[in-house]
Amino acid sequence: MSKANGKIEVGVLGASGYTGADLVRLLAAHPATELRLLTANAHAGKPMAQVYPHLGGLDLPDLIKVEDADWDAVDVAFCGLPHGTTQEIIAGLPAALKVVDLSADFRLTDAATYAQWYGHEHRALHLQEEAVYGLTEHRRAEVKDARLVACPGCYPTAALLLLLPLVAEGLISSEDIIIDAKSGVTGAGRSVKEANLFAEIAEGIHPYAVAAHRHAPEIEQELSAVSGAPILVNFTPHLMPMNRGELLTTYVRLGEGASVEALRAALGARYDPEPFVRVVPQGAVPASRHVRGSNFCLLGVFPDRIPGRAILVSTLDNLVKGSSGQAIQNMNVMFGLEETLGLEQQPLFP
Amino acid sequence: MSKANGKIEVGVLGASGYTGADLVRLLAAHPATELRLLTANAHAGKPMAQVYPHLGGLDLPDLIKVEDADWDAVDVAFCGLPHGTTQEIIAGLPAALKVVDLSADFRLTDAATYAQWYGHEHRALHLQEEAVYGLTEHRRAEVKDARLVACPGCYPTAALLLLLPLVAEGLISSEDIIIDAKSGVTGAGRSVKEANLFAEIAEGIHPYAVAAHRHAPEIEQELSAVSGAPILVNFTPHLMPMNRGELLTTYVRLGEGASVEALRAALGARYDPEPFVRVVPQGAVPASRHVRGSNFCLLGVFPDRIPGRAILVSTLDNLVKGSSGQAIQNMNVMFGLEETLGLEQQPLFP
Amino acid sequence: MSKANGKIEVGVLGASGYTGADLVRLLAAHPATELRLLTANAHAGKPMAQVYPHLGGLDLPDLIKVEDADWDAVDVAFCGLPHGTTQEIIAGLPAALKVVDLSADFRLTDAATYAQWYGHEHRALHLQEEAVYGLTEHRRAEVKDARLVACPGCYPTAALLLLLPLVAEGLISSEDIIIDAKSGVTGAGRSVKEANLFAEIAEGIHPYAVAAHRHAPEIEQELSAVSGAPILVNFTPHLMPMNRGELLTTYVRLGEGASVEALRAALGARYDPEPFVRVVPQGAVPASRHVRGSNFCLLGVFPDRIPGRAILVSTLDNLVKGSSGQAIQNMNVMFGLEETLGLEQQPLFP
Amino acid sequence: MSKANGKIEVGVLGASGYTGADLVRLLAAHPATELRLLTANAHAGKPMAQVYPHLGGLDLPDLIKVEDADWDAVDVAFCGLPHGTTQEIIAGLPAALKVVDLSADFRLTDAATYAQWYGHEHRALHLQEEAVYGLTEHRRAEVKDARLVACPGCYPTAALLLLLPLVAEGLISSEDIIIDAKSGVTGAGRSVKEANLFAEIAEGIHPYAVAAHRHAPEIEQELSAVSGAPILVNFTPHLMPMNRGELLTTYVRLGEGASVEALRAALGARYDPEPFVRVVPQGAVPASRHVRGSNFCLLGVFPDRIPGRAILVSTLDNLVKGSSGQAIQNMNVMFGLEETLGLEQQPLFP
Repeated sequence: MSKANGKIEVGVLGASGYTGADLVRLLAAHPATELRLLTANAHAGKPMAQVYPHLGGLDLPDLIKVEDADWDAVDVAFCGLPHGTTQEIIAGLPAALKVVDLSADFRLTDAATYAQWYGHEHRALHLQEEAVYGLTEHRRAEVKDARLVACPGCYPTAALLLLLPLVAEGLISSEDIIIDAKSGVTGAGRSVKEANLFAEIAEGIHPYAVAAHRHAPEIEQELSAVSGAPILVNFTPHLMPMNRGELLTTYVRLGEGASVEALRAALGARYDPEPFVRVVPQGAVPASRHVRGSNFCLLGVFPDRIPGRAILVSTLDNLVKGSSGQAIQNMNVMFGLEETLGLEQQPLFP
Repeated sequence: MSKANGKIEVGVLGASGYTGADLVRLLAAHPATELRLLTANAHAGKPMAQVYPHLGGLDLPDLIKVEDADWDAVDVAFCGLPHGTTQEIIAGLPAALKVVDLSADFRLTDAATYAQWYGHEHRALHLQEEAVYGLTEHRRAEVKDARLVACPGCYPTAALLLLLPLVAEGLISSEDIIIDAKSGVTGAGRSVKEANLFAEIAEGIHPYAVAAHRHAPEIEQELSAVSGAPILVNFTPHLMPMNRGELLTTYVRLGEGASVEALRAALGARYDPEPFVRVVPQGAVPASRHVRGSNFCLLGVFPDRIPGRAILVSTLDNLVKGSSGQAIQNMNVMFGLEETLGLEQQPLFP
Repeated sequence: MSKANGKIEVGVLGASGYTGADLVRLLAAHPATELRLLTANAHAGKPMAQVYPHLGGLDLPDLIKVEDADWDAVDVAFCGLPHGTTQEIIAGLPAALKVVDLSADFRLTDAATYAQWYGHEHRALHLQEEAVYGLTEHRRAEVKDARLVACPGCYPTAALLLLLPLVAEGLISSEDIIIDAKSGVTGAGRSVKEANLFAEIAEGIHPYAVAAHRHAPEIEQELSAVSGAPILVNFTPHLMPMNRGELLTTYVRLGEGASVEALRAALGARYDPEPFVRVVPQGAVPASRHVRGSNFCLLGVFPDRIPGRAILVSTLDNLVKGSSGQAIQNMNVMFGLEETLGLEQQPLFP
Repeated sequence: MSKANGKIEVGVLGASGYTGADLVRLLAAHPATELRLLTANAHAGKPMAQVYPHLGGLDLPDLIKVEDADWDAVDVAFCGLPHGTTQEIIAGLPAALKVVDLSADFRLTDAATYAQWYGHEHRALHLQEEAVYGLTEHRRAEVKDARLVACPGCYPTAALLLLLPLVAEGLISSEDIIIDAKSGVTGAGRSVKEANLFAEIAEGIHPYAVAAHRHAPEIEQELSAVSGAPILVNFTPHLMPMNRGELLTTYVRLGEGASVEALRAALGARYDPEPFVRVVPQGAVPASRHVRGSNFCLLGVFPDRIPGRAILVSTLDNLVKGSSGQAIQNMNVMFGLEETLGLEQQPLFP
């Protein structure tokens, strides 16, 4: 693609988060990339293996400050930085550099919505307009031509892969869509907070950010776009004692004339050509452990006892299909590679 | 109450299940009871401490077959037997013996509903009529006079403590009540199944018995009774990696003229005099780990982003308030004791 | 004992740690105590239930700063403060106040050893001399008359209950005693560190503080005292994914003429009268889950395949027998109460 | 290598165990193999994805009975069958077929030792003589020429990679080698036993098979061979709440004139050329989570506080380097492939 050895030269900004570590894990096995640059300001100067000993078998560049990065050395930058920060750093990158952003900074297209949910005015509005929302299976053509791709949040990925085709085809009502989400703790990153201590999480479950999670407006933006009318959803996440994975149980009313079978058939047809999204067979149940460590997303459709309603389930690994894996999938598209390249690991179970 | 030392003499039928073990744990600390009889046919002849080493510090009668039990020795029998079996054994007990049943056998009052959900005709219909549904906080007076109390299932306890007052007062719509439940694995008992192996449960979550769980008709029976009209609910349980505890997130439409504040106020007022049910303060969130090992049930009320809707949360320890604890609470009422006797342990956290 | 209602008035200093919370859990159920005072400088002004919602069912005094405590209001102070701090605060308490210290400050009797392992000179050496090492089963008489009791560390409690009788009777060699310890994470307290995050602990195990844990000199001090000669031990702790509990597997050489049976018999005889320490039956295996939440310590003795050696196992709940429970046991002794008062909860399993 | 497409055609016997599933996971990504045959008598006729839904994204042959296998279709058979069974089935395979056995059947070279530990006479003694003990790093040349490779047990792999070089060079005493092992539950396979239920494992730890585990004679056989004199070891395994991984803490006396530094240096030098075995840097600590899902084994060397002793740590994923991964590594050697082929996945952390 680019440099001498024909490999894409890659930089990872914010490599010390769990998302950064999973990017490195996956990119190290990617046949068409070469890791050139890892930044992590709080750990600058350290080898990556000191921050993540499980990567000690790899030959990696040391962590440096983002200010010290040599942008000429790379063809693409993955940004796993905290929101807010990202905007300014990306705005300062060379215009030719392709960027796959894993933060929330360029997901919301409406400046007011961004400001409302993130608590400050956006600092790179011109880029927000340029950015493509990187839900690969639904934006492949735009991603292909994009310079800046904003990868969806982990919850929106699981929600939208499930709901977009159903809303688009009118198979479900757009009213009272209720999304009950259960997530492992890596969704919160490696941030050191009392709430994320082992003893605060093990052997228990609780909802959090009830009716106030930032992924709700993101889901709504995309559903509204295909619906043609504004959609409000209930999105209620719960934190549970597992490392990776999230499972969303979504409760919907069937659209006019639609049936549970029609929903299953529509999703089956829509995702049949897709390598990473799969509707489980009738009688089977999606389980988060069945996608652990992989780029797969599983979908399930069930009848409700209440007539006219359906129960929908979607599950993925928040660090892979919900973050690093989807980011690499987008990179593959942006560079004209086979979309599955470097992403064919099977799930790790048990 | 009865024999020489003034203590209530107690038998536990089916003492080798987790529910039986938790009954023993709690009754051993109960100041007004004496454990006289423990049955477990598969383990007859063994000391309880061989089946449950954690109870090795107690002086307990050995396990015997239920056929070998001397019913004259006890004032009350707790039945923790599998459904079906229970009917016949209880039908054969002396008429004077008080019975607190923890199985599903006498919960459903409609014979056809029982047969539909449990796969066989009921074998002790006359007792089904006599049995009182032992949701203590809502049936105290009937429990007081009952000979046979059918303790509610763990999920129905958490659902009904939350919903009964709201449905009764018309504060929520009785349509489209959606109950998303998350449970630890002890709800499945100590039965040896592949699905309950550690490696099948740890690090994951999945729904089960989707739209087909036997606790749904139980919830519906009680809600319909207070509503005066048949109510169908969505009840979707999920299995997650923890031992004890369940948390239900219930999605409802507000009743005519009702508000989220009215719901919280109604529950607060209803349970203010109750020792075991508590509405968490505004801003706090019920968590299953905050009731572990105790007889408490916590309730929470939250506004939904979708206007006219609310998000309700209830949580309890399935083996205590959802089973053994509530059974003892009922026994206390049946024998005219202080209702909290033997049930005042604080939750074990972490 | 003291004030109007005849109850012992209790203060807990450092109530916001897990040890403090477990003290409150247990003292709330203690029939002879009344909680008067809770300090936690970082949370002063808050209700305890805000810091520990699982205690929301109790009527407790709000948290205050230690500087604001009214010492006249209490008969005994439990100190769950970080080491170092404790020395100065305890030195400033009224001389009449009984003190049960759960920190490491008064455990080591040798000032140089303290300075070597804790990194600073001791600041209250006169109290160090007065303090009684509160391993109740072995120091009952001294604890009874003590004003200041230094409760043993959790690991030393499990190690010494096992080893003291065997070393004292010469049943094991005092050379090459190897203690491999496995602990849940609450041993590290509620301190907010990356190493204690759920995702860093779940699904894994690792040793820590190899050959450098502060509990080693404490174990050695007590073993040396009964042996009459200095003893060095190997003590290697491991951190594993559970909340509570620790299990020590100790590898020893049999003493001259001793047999595995003699070891088992000696421990059995020594602890037969003790309510909280129990040797498991031959063929059974101590498991940490069998003591969870209780004040019990279980011991096991096994032959080694290598002739002349034995494998010893001890397990307890680090927050109860290893900390808060033993502290209350000591208070019971100090105040002439029944030693088991408030400590008779059975283990919570599963 | 063989058939038309140049790929090695592979059969997996006993594909329904966790080891079988992990073989399939890894072989599916192996560039030089094609899965032709999967047997699982209890599940014959089912698609693999029904038994292991996480493999639902693969195109696999259905499960068949071992009796129905067409051996001409494959070049190599991996046997993941229960011990005992294996002997007879392997004895009946075509003589030209290469076999990589993951059971215990051909590990012990002494017939009497086998009979003593496995409770029956060996039924294929002639094969036992032919079999090569497949600890790849130490038997590479013999594995290369072998038809039948007996892969080491998971514990022996972790113990021997650590101890063989040290015993061979006399750097440690061969007396009183004490191996304290901690393992996740997949080591017990998918067998449905009460002891493996989630609720029996979570939140606890206990030793098992104390001084009676079948991996002890296997470790002793190999250590004795390099030592030239019989060695007895203490091997004490513990079961802990995690899926994958095992960590061994081994306590040894230094050999005459040896130092901790010499041990570390010897291991470093021995494994420097090896792709899968790594000595962690001084100051770092091996952790089982740092090898999860990978074929790596990490070693650590620490000084003991007791002079003349050392603490050694080794860790690996029992299902990969301890079983399926090492089996594939052996296959690579047997077929003259690059040894790391198909085994280069990085560990999955968190």
